[in-house]
Amino acid sequence: MGFSPRSGSQTDMDQFVRYAQAAERGKVQLLFIADTPVLDVDLDHHAPHHMVDPLLILTVLARETERIGLVTTASTTFTEPYNLARQFKALDVISHGRAGWNAVTTSDPAAAANFGATIPPRAEKYERAHEVIQIVQALWGSWEKDAWLLDVNGKRFADMDKIQPVNLQGKHTASRGPLPIPPSEQGQPVIFQAGGGSYGLELAGRYASGVYANPYTIEDAQTQRQVLGDAAKRAGRDPDEVKMLAGFMPTIAPSRQAALQRRRFLDEVVDLNQRVRYLGAMIGLPLGPAQLDEPLTADQLADAKPSPHDPRSDRALAVAREGWTLRDVLAHGVIDYHPVVAGTATDVADHMQQWFEAGACDGYSIAVDSYHDGFVDQVVPILQERGLFHDDYEGPTLRENLGAHEQYGLDPRLTTPARQ
Amino acid sequence: MGFSPRSGSQTDMDQFVRYAQAAERGKVQLLFIADTPVLDVDLDHHAPHHMVDPLLILTVLARETERIGLVTTASTTFTEPYNLARQFKALDVISHGRAGWNAVTTSDPAAAANFGATIPPRAEKYERAHEVIQIVQALWGSWEKDAWLLDVNGKRFADMDKIQPVNLQGKHTASRGPLPIPPSEQGQPVIFQAGGGSYGLELAGRYASGVYANPYTIEDAQTQRQVLGDAAKRAGRDPDEVKMLAGFMPTIAPSRQAALQRRRFLDEVVDLNQRVRYLGAMIGLPLGPAQLDEPLTADQLADAKPSPHDPRSDRALAVAREGWTLRDVLAHGVIDYHPVVAGTATDVADHMQQWFEAGACDGYSIAVDSYHDGFVDQVVPILQERGLFHDDYEGPTLRENLGAHEQYGLDPRLTTPARQ
Repeated sequence: MGFSPRSGSQTDMDQFVRYAQAAERGKVQLLFIADTPVLDVDLDHHAPHHMVDPLLILTVLARETERIGLVTTASTTFTEPYNLARQFKALDVISHGRAGWNAVTTSDPAAAANFGATIPPRAEKYERAHEVIQIVQALWGSWEKDAWLLDVNGKRFADMDKIQPVNLQGKHTASRGPLPIPPSEQGQPVIFQAGGGSYGLELAGRYASGVYANPYTIEDAQTQRQVLGDAAKRAGRDPDEVKMLAGFMPTIAPSRQAALQRRRFLDEVVDLNQRVRYLGAMIGLPLGPAQLDEPLTADQLADAKPSPHDPRSDRALAVAREGWTLRDVLAHGVIDYHPVVAGTATDVADHMQQWFEAGACDGYSIAVDSYHDGFVDQVVPILQERGLFHDDYEGPTLRENLGAHEQYGLDPRLTTPARQ
Repeated sequence: MGFSPRSGSQTDMDQFVRYAQAAERGKVQLLFIADTPVLDVDLDHHAPHHMVDPLLILTVLARETERIGLVTTASTTFTEPYNLARQFKALDVISHGRAGWNAVTTSDPAAAANFGATIPPRAEKYERAHEVIQIVQALWGSWEKDAWLLDVNGKRFADMDKIQPVNLQGKHTASRGPLPIPPSEQGQPVIFQAGGGSYGLELAGRYASGVYANPYTIEDAQTQRQVLGDAAKRAGRDPDEVKMLAGFMPTIAPSRQAALQRRRFLDEVVDLNQRVRYLGAMIGLPLGPAQLDEPLTADQLADAKPSPHDPRSDRALAVAREGWTLRDVLAHGVIDYHPVVAGTATDVADHMQQWFEAGACDGYSIAVDSYHDGFVDQVVPILQERGLFHDDYEGPTLRENLGAHEQYGLDPRLTTPARQ
């Protein structure tokens, strides 16, 4: 189970620390900070995200937490593999084996422009992503595990015979190595992946120990998990090595009404006029802000038709049929990026149990609203009581707590890339 | 005055923290971590350096210190300006205005190979360096100082009219921007420069507030400082805006004999056989390890001749003439990278006063050996008593404590680079 923090001020490290410490109190396996190298929200109307470099935030958290995993996104498209390898390995050493890298390609032309570039064609972008991940993993393994002696009195710091260049040359990028950093307590950082499509799936199947997925329904999730397992098999791996983490946004309150009120408050920082129009498009009606505090009329309900282009449309219409005002329909999270449960701690735990027992996911990526203590103090104990969640961390490293397979350097089961 | 830390284990953040806290107790203005993106020492025989990414180390220190400036090197040759700008600005925000960037080009072919590249011709490398620094500074200034509103209740996080792309296009690199990070308490990080030559000097003259210099004598230092001031003038700046920090390696002990013994101990971790041969080359004699514990013979002294190719040769011969064994001649630091004073706290303070009053430097970059507490507790009080060093920090930011000029975004006195 992983938490994705939200913070009112993205520049206040104390908020991130409080958040991480709360998650750790709840034995949450990892904290994940999404990232993209561009200012991609209109700060006139939207809360900021992706501001301070996430590797630096996680470095802060590494020193002020002890067990929770620390995972963030970095682009394979616009960062040099040597720099990626060095910074993630440094975080892994500083956190004593708790770092993870969500290796993703970048698609936003505005992000490319920040590097004076354009987005390459999809096939080329993923070809580079394979090279970058392989070079990074090879650099991580460029010290044999027992190379680091640190025998200051005997004047031998390392056995240089056990520290070798990687000499990898791809079509798009290359690196000689070695990296100047010894292994961490978990050897090297754990790889995550996000974003679907056949290219993304192949990447996940080959390298990832955890995958961020965005299913809206149990059926959708079961299919995604099956397809992901097949991709792992094609790469010669055991499907169990790749954990699918389903995105999930709970809002916890003493009652469903109170939870909806809480979500209405959160919705006030987003552009509701735009959202109500989008809701209309989802259910085939021309809706506008004037109707925000009214439910759908009988005539509208008769005309409504869920859009086949948005997997969330059926649920949106089902909630609207219950008679809620449009503001409250939206407060149910019907057009949010992940499934929303606005309810009691038991409602949230029930939803998680239902998905998990249906084999819809291996775990969750939970975007908790600012009331993260509620999740930790109310939902976690229920899950523990039901035997669905561990009572304590399995060990000090992310690899142990995620149940990820052992890996140091490149995966020997994969085709070795061309050496120079 | 700045400290450059040495650490037995470069992976132990607690050591760096203790070091930084000691320096801060001594009101040292800044901590500097040198870096180069390659494993460039033979760890079989030499203590490691440049291991963990220094931006991550400084992030750790930012949270565990309050006033000391945090400066590190990053290459303009092999890092994208957007990434540089974002990470240094992030450090500046996390440290509440204490970050500095030592902007240098990279010359080591092995470092280039880590990026699948070769070292470009000198002129091209510096042309890119100018572009990178200008793009980084422009990105830092891409938020007007009052753009950040953070009015969560009024639902306005920033005034987007005051956050604009920079749209800079150079010959070697480019960036659109804006950066997603608001100004820090000092606006933006302070620029440092290191490494001489006419190209490096022009870079320092145009952009730097602090310059790391490596003079061996007062005369050499005076000349370097004059030349640096002239470079600042040519760029339309006041020479006082560019502080020259002279490298200096003190070893402090109750007596000169005890200080030499301490240095002999430190020398044991280096390859003395190589050093004694190098000493021979400096003074025109074929010396070898067999003579390590003997002084030069009368015949050798008669034949000795300082090499004109090494500015340290005169002092090396002068120390040898005093009759020390070759091991002790080396312990005097005659072939170290910076001037060495091995003596009492008063000896060290005297040396610093002499250089400072001769106008040889504006401050020092002090590579203290592991006994940094000695410098803080013994030398600093003498310098304070003599009125040569401040009793406390001038303010919370590096810019204040260095006496650096105000700057936000590009320096308007410099020629504006071509916009897209």
